[in-house]
Amino acid sequence: MSFREHLAEVCQSVDGAIACTLMGVDGIEVDSHVQSGADVDYKSLLVEYSGVFRNARDAAEAHEAGGVSELAISTEKVTTVARLVTPEYYLVMALSPGGNLGKARYLLRVTAPLLRSEL
Amino acid sequence: MSFREHLAEVCQSVDGAIACTLMGVDGIEVDSHVQSGADVDYKSLLVEYSGVFRNARDAAEAHEAGGVSELAISTEKVTTVARLVTPEYYLVMALSPGGNLGKARYLLRVTAPLLRSEL
Repeated sequence: MSFREHLAEVCQSVDGAIACTLMGVDGIEVDSHVQSGADVDYKSLLVEYSGVFRNARDAAEAHEAGGVSELAISTEKVTTVARLVTPEYYLVMALSPGGNLGKARYLLRVTAPLLRSEL
Repeated sequence: MSFREHLAEVCQSVDGAIACTLMGVDGIEVDSHVQSGADVDYKSLLVEYSGVFRNARDAAEAHEAGGVSELAISTEKVTTVARLVTPEYYLVMALSPGGNLGKARYLLRVTAPLLRSEL
């Protein structure tokens, strides 16, 4: 399965999915599947959120809380959940505010090892 | 009910709860209830995470995604979930990694309006 097929499969299984992306912690996208339109510029938002991810990682490391495995940010227009795949890459999914965040978290958790073995 | 009683009630209802805090977005604590010991310096971590919260808020605003209502960060040792109460204050809860994040999110959502009316 290609990266994009994995990303599409995750989107198709989650109610309210907008898109799923494999992304470098540096903010550079590897691959994306866009499921439906959103009210926000999803890709620009992700680049900005990659800075938030690095910020959370540095904060956790500074206080010996261990590595950040997951980060979820909910705003009025979009919920995003990111899961670390390797120290350099993470999977991130955007959902509409009423989307199924629990299912998204679960699917990112089980999909991350599948992508890890291909990176 | 005082702030601390609300915070204690939330902790007592969530499996794996470590602590619950009402916090200024500037990183200054208003009140806290500590339920059980943690492997990490919870209070210092929260101060650092308040910077992550501001960072997420600025990123979302810059891309017109609306205000940040919730932010959850999971690390190897501790999961924290923060919910905005007013533009200046948020409620934040720390859980052990196997704790019930769904219940924590639910209780923060229903408790936030109760605290808002007292702030």
